[in-house]
Amino acid sequence: MTGDQLSSPALLPSGFVDLLPLDAQAEANGTEAMLAVFASHGYERVAPPLLEFEDTLLGGAGAVLADQAFRLMDPDTRRMMALRPDITPQIARIAATRLHAAARPLRLSYAGQSVIAGNGGAGQNERQIGQAGIELIGPDGVEADAEVVSVAAEALGRLGVTAVSFDVTMPPLAPSLIKHAGLSDKTRTALMHALDRKDAAAVAEHGGTIAEILIALLNAAGSADEALEALKCADLPVETLRFSERLMASAQAIRGRLPNLQLTVDPVEFRGWKYHTGVCVTAYSLESGEELGRGGRYLCNNNEPACGFTFRPDAVFRAAPRGTHARRVYVPFGTAPGIAEALREDGYVTVAALELQSLPEVEARRLSCPSIVRDGKLQSLD
Amino acid sequence: MTGDQLSSPALLPSGFVDLLPLDAQAEANGTEAMLAVFASHGYERVAPPLLEFEDTLLGGAGAVLADQAFRLMDPDTRRMMALRPDITPQIARIAATRLHAAARPLRLSYAGQSVIAGNGGAGQNERQIGQAGIELIGPDGVEADAEVVSVAAEALGRLGVTAVSFDVTMPPLAPSLIKHAGLSDKTRTALMHALDRKDAAAVAEHGGTIAEILIALLNAAGSADEALEALKCADLPVETLRFSERLMASAQAIRGRLPNLQLTVDPVEFRGWKYHTGVCVTAYSLESGEELGRGGRYLCNNNEPACGFTFRPDAVFRAAPRGTHARRVYVPFGTAPGIAEALREDGYVTVAALELQSLPEVEARRLSCPSIVRDGKLQSLD
Repeated sequence: MTGDQLSSPALLPSGFVDLLPLDAQAEANGTEAMLAVFASHGYERVAPPLLEFEDTLLGGAGAVLADQAFRLMDPDTRRMMALRPDITPQIARIAATRLHAAARPLRLSYAGQSVIAGNGGAGQNERQIGQAGIELIGPDGVEADAEVVSVAAEALGRLGVTAVSFDVTMPPLAPSLIKHAGLSDKTRTALMHALDRKDAAAVAEHGGTIAEILIALLNAAGSADEALEALKCADLPVETLRFSERLMASAQAIRGRLPNLQLTVDPVEFRGWKYHTGVCVTAYSLESGEELGRGGRYLCNNNEPACGFTFRPDAVFRAAPRGTHARRVYVPFGTAPGIAEALREDGYVTVAALELQSLPEVEARRLSCPSIVRDGKLQSLD
Repeated sequence: MTGDQLSSPALLPSGFVDLLPLDAQAEANGTEAMLAVFASHGYERVAPPLLEFEDTLLGGAGAVLADQAFRLMDPDTRRMMALRPDITPQIARIAATRLHAAARPLRLSYAGQSVIAGNGGAGQNERQIGQAGIELIGPDGVEADAEVVSVAAEALGRLGVTAVSFDVTMPPLAPSLIKHAGLSDKTRTALMHALDRKDAAAVAEHGGTIAEILIALLNAAGSADEALEALKCADLPVETLRFSERLMASAQAIRGRLPNLQLTVDPVEFRGWKYHTGVCVTAYSLESGEELGRGGRYLCNNNEPACGFTFRPDAVFRAAPRGTHARRVYVPFGTAPGIAEALREDGYVTVAALELQSLPEVEARRLSCPSIVRDGKLQSLD
């Protein structure tokens, strides 16, 4: 196979990419910066493996991920294994097993790669997905929801990503409302589809007795204040009230911690969620509209309450200001090693010649070094 | 599935593990520290994907890895893909394709996870293998070999791993010597097995005219000075001389840069190498004897010369001195946010209460915090 053949990007499977120097470094630095913020709030790092037995990985909180996972057979045991499509269910497993005796609240963090078999929908073409996140296991209260969002917002801020919006939803709310409205199966399905498309006319057509409430809530989506006011006024059945009350309480707890955060609430949004059972949060870049990460409340394998937030580092770094280039210095052949060592200690990158060059300045420029060591001193070539 | 069932470690496939808090953090920190050393010498980070099409991943330098790789089918194209068993051949592919026009010497670094299907032999039970390394692409000279070893040694030193030995070998040397000795196929095979086992009696039995040289070289393995002296005195056929001369020159270049490094040379070692075509180097911990990493010279997909070194971060961190625990501070409910923020800026880890606790000191100890915020000030609980 020649270089030219290989240089066609189609020779990598769709959804898998090579990160080249500046991008790979930015993603690595940014991930570690986010993990440092997580650690400073007591979230301790764990690292589950890339693959597990299928029944472990896709059991518990991971069951809803079954159709997203690549399978392969363990040649030793002939049991099926699966590549992880998501790290959160692995953290839930660790919390329920090896860390079941650790003190609660249990705060864990992680960073790693996941692989999904099909396209993830919603315009996502990537099949290898970087993830970096936190999980807060044990507490069930609104302060836990708010801590997770505030730590996530701080991590974005650390990377200079400040033009962000957090959207709070309660995926079980609309299904609960619809379930208790006494509709036929067919109407219920039509109504869910209408809501999913945010199609107010179709909601009116199929909504029966709850059409008015649903349209009011649909229209209320947006700024947190207005959405919460509309929720408060909505005449909800008692079964749905607990969801709406929790959504309001969580959103208010987040507002309390982060009064300057752009916060939206969408009371009837429910699609795209996986194992989540309660309040969910999505972070968006206000500049590109791209989703930067998402999280929410779920149950660990032993039904212990938990909530978390997972960033997509690649999306976060697309939204982050670009870092400055490293200061590269060309070190001609024969330069005393101590000189390059001192430069590295001062934060320079030293690029050493491996043989004598007749024109070291030309060689320095060829190797993207704007400065050079000459007579034992750093000299700029500009 | 209950927590008790899951807590059996046998529920993860053999060779795959969960890293728990302190280990996961140590491995992440240590990997980034090594990559920072690599970067300071101009090695720029790239990140190839976890899996590729089989014919790309296991072609070129990767061909010898074919029997170590897990395969899976791409549902989109029905083409077979493979999980990477090693990152170096991916770097070679990137150098030959997307970076084929980048200036040489091309210095690249990487860190990531690889997966091997079977047990890797040599007592390795892990099937998910962390790798962190450098590749120096373009130059073919001994100074390139020496730079790679000296950067690898500096990375170990940065992690406090100083009790190390680097063993230099030339895998093609013994096969070349045996090939040109005019032995029968059967004797040649027996001799290779004897050398592989370092069985001097069997080497004497099967070695014919080269038995004496082989035994001398076998006995010379060890301290670089003695081994190089024995190599110099050995009466080698001209076809083998180029390997022995290059081995001597590379070892001397390494000695020139790192006079205090413990360096051994094993002139007739050849097993366990994969795509390597020239000088190879293995780093060992002098305390545990464990292999910390290995590397050597090979050819990129377009036959461009290259050499590199890849660490096993898990082995390196077993050899590294343990870091100190983070200083955890319990922050009672209702503490002004600025106080915890200031503590985090000073390097503390703050563990926030999510509700009012009647006995905050008890709660602090339960959450492994040796200090607490009281009346707005940090107080030790010791």
